[in-house]
Amino acid sequence: MLVEVIHLGKGHPSPSLLPDAMLRQALAGLTSARSLSALQYRGAAQDTNFRSALAAFLTDRYGHQVSPAAVLPTSGISLTLAMACQVFAAAGDTVVCGDPTYFLATTIFKTAGMALHTVPVDAQGMVVEALEAALRSGLRPALVYCIPAYHNPAGVCLSPERAERLVDLAETYGFRILADEPYTLLHYGPAPPPCLMSLDRGRGRVIGLGSFSKLLAPGLRVGWLHAHPDLIAAFCAHGTLRSGGGLNPWMSAAVTALMEDGSLGAHVDRLRTTLSARMDVLTASLEAHLPDCTFQRPAGGYFLWTRLTSPIPDGVAVLSGSRCSPSGSCREQARLSVSLYDAPMLQEAVSRLADAARDSSALGRAR
Amino acid sequence: MLVEVIHLGKGHPSPSLLPDAMLRQALAGLTSARSLSALQYRGAAQDTNFRSALAAFLTDRYGHQVSPAAVLPTSGISLTLAMACQVFAAAGDTVVCGDPTYFLATTIFKTAGMALHTVPVDAQGMVVEALEAALRSGLRPALVYCIPAYHNPAGVCLSPERAERLVDLAETYGFRILADEPYTLLHYGPAPPPCLMSLDRGRGRVIGLGSFSKLLAPGLRVGWLHAHPDLIAAFCAHGTLRSGGGLNPWMSAAVTALMEDGSLGAHVDRLRTTLSARMDVLTASLEAHLPDCTFQRPAGGYFLWTRLTSPIPDGVAVLSGSRCSPSGSCREQARLSVSLYDAPMLQEAVSRLADAARDSSALGRAR
Repeated sequence: MLVEVIHLGKGHPSPSLLPDAMLRQALAGLTSARSLSALQYRGAAQDTNFRSALAAFLTDRYGHQVSPAAVLPTSGISLTLAMACQVFAAAGDTVVCGDPTYFLATTIFKTAGMALHTVPVDAQGMVVEALEAALRSGLRPALVYCIPAYHNPAGVCLSPERAERLVDLAETYGFRILADEPYTLLHYGPAPPPCLMSLDRGRGRVIGLGSFSKLLAPGLRVGWLHAHPDLIAAFCAHGTLRSGGGLNPWMSAAVTALMEDGSLGAHVDRLRTTLSARMDVLTASLEAHLPDCTFQRPAGGYFLWTRLTSPIPDGVAVLSGSRCSPSGSCREQARLSVSLYDAPMLQEAVSRLADAARDSSALGRAR
Repeated sequence: MLVEVIHLGKGHPSPSLLPDAMLRQALAGLTSARSLSALQYRGAAQDTNFRSALAAFLTDRYGHQVSPAAVLPTSGISLTLAMACQVFAAAGDTVVCGDPTYFLATTIFKTAGMALHTVPVDAQGMVVEALEAALRSGLRPALVYCIPAYHNPAGVCLSPERAERLVDLAETYGFRILADEPYTLLHYGPAPPPCLMSLDRGRGRVIGLGSFSKLLAPGLRVGWLHAHPDLIAAFCAHGTLRSGGGLNPWMSAAVTALMEDGSLGAHVDRLRTTLSARMDVLTASLEAHLPDCTFQRPAGGYFLWTRLTSPIPDGVAVLSGSRCSPSGSCREQARLSVSLYDAPMLQEAVSRLADAARDSSALGRAR
């Protein structure tokens, strides 16, 4: 019998969580004037409907005042990172990343010709003290890339003290912070952690990168920039935006409609409930069946970062920690995700892991 | 009375030419399986439906065999140019542009940190002989950017001899050609000029950049790359594609449906008829009322490149030639477009230009 592999490491949403019908209805329901305006060449900054609706949505969800002038529609975080390297840095400049970090972000920075410098990540997020030591020793990065909320892969949040210190260091040493925040609004509890822009206080040091890939669907390619209006203006001077207009205006119009009528908020709350319940199942299952597997339970997002000492059987795939480590460390760790599978499949995956651990342990005793 | 300005230089399509209903129907009609697959993370190369449908569409329209392996969905030419600079060149490398050239392409190259070198454009397109002389003198570009068909702004096509020579030079001197081809399929006569890839012959020197911005709507942000499969693979290794998946998969799925059911072809033929008729009106009007205005009648596309010696009145705006010239020359020239206005408005614009010319001439005599 061919065993279907359970890809426990994949950060893809379940097909059942993709709001296909809702998105098609949003486009079908656009007024002709709005649709035609979004189908035309139009600069991203001119998309005032999106900017107003997003500012209202974020103000409500973040519990922090967000101005329409501080947000801009993009076509997702991956592209915005590549463009931000061209606008806020130059090829050859240094970008600081956590270790571990989002495993494909480093590929984007390499494509942009950036040099990488890493600092550790612990249970309170990026170790800002290690960054500070490197800065004191002469490191002069153009950018620091961090994932402040429900870190990919580590699941942790940047502590408030470190977050404050990070923005202060950016001001002192003249770098900018790329805050990759796609998971912030997927908090399991009642409130999300603060967005990093809430600590910017007009200093123009934080560039928040948001996305509807996790709130609606990855294939939409709609996201946002959240930054001081001067940085928004600098980003809009990128040649691609000058030439092509908005990065995804028609799709942004569909998302605007879903923000305006409250559908997005309701959908995000369903996602939060689902992801939180799945994480309960995954962590309870691991505790019951794999007592040697250690982890810190995340309070939101997609990922559980574990130390898995037993071998991974053929029927399960995980994202190995070393792939998330620019230095190739974290070899005993793995990223597990609750985004793709429902509770029974998560339990089945843990059961397969537990079987393999038992077999391996029996083999060890027999030797 | 406030006179509404006629923006005769703008390369925007008329709202009446944007197929809003057709696009919404294409999305509404997608099967659930196709829609869900396009809403998920999925690499651009995995979009086999788009690649097959586009290859068939281009093979039919170009009259030249295009393989699915030689095309890839993108989110339009502006972004693809920026990404191509990161994949096929490095910051600090030289890109050669025509003079004049598409006025916002140079902004994209500057954002990418490229150095510019210009060669003239005449009635047979980019003066490849001038490029060859510069190469013999030691110029070593990474990229040559050209607009082979219905040039923006010059309206001309690259002659077959120069096109052949250009690809040969790319092979000899080791550069790649960014062939910006958004207007090729908007030919007024029965057949388009050859796409530059038809001369590549497996050498991997030509990177064709196509777009649905002119064939459907700019706000869709869907285009394509047309190049040797090895170059397609190199482009897919860009960090943004590795991380975000396809550049605009859900929109690409809508366009795929319109290619498959023949709607796109029928729409493009309507556009060709409309643009050709408008160009007839514009050129006849200029010949009748502004005999001093000289131009070469284009055989396709959006733009008429003119020498306008009389002053431009307040009621008309044109794109001044100097904005299209990286060297700031072409001061007596202007780009006029037939994309935005219908025949009566084009005639009204020429009438205003003629009035201004007459007033200026009378003033000249009175002095």
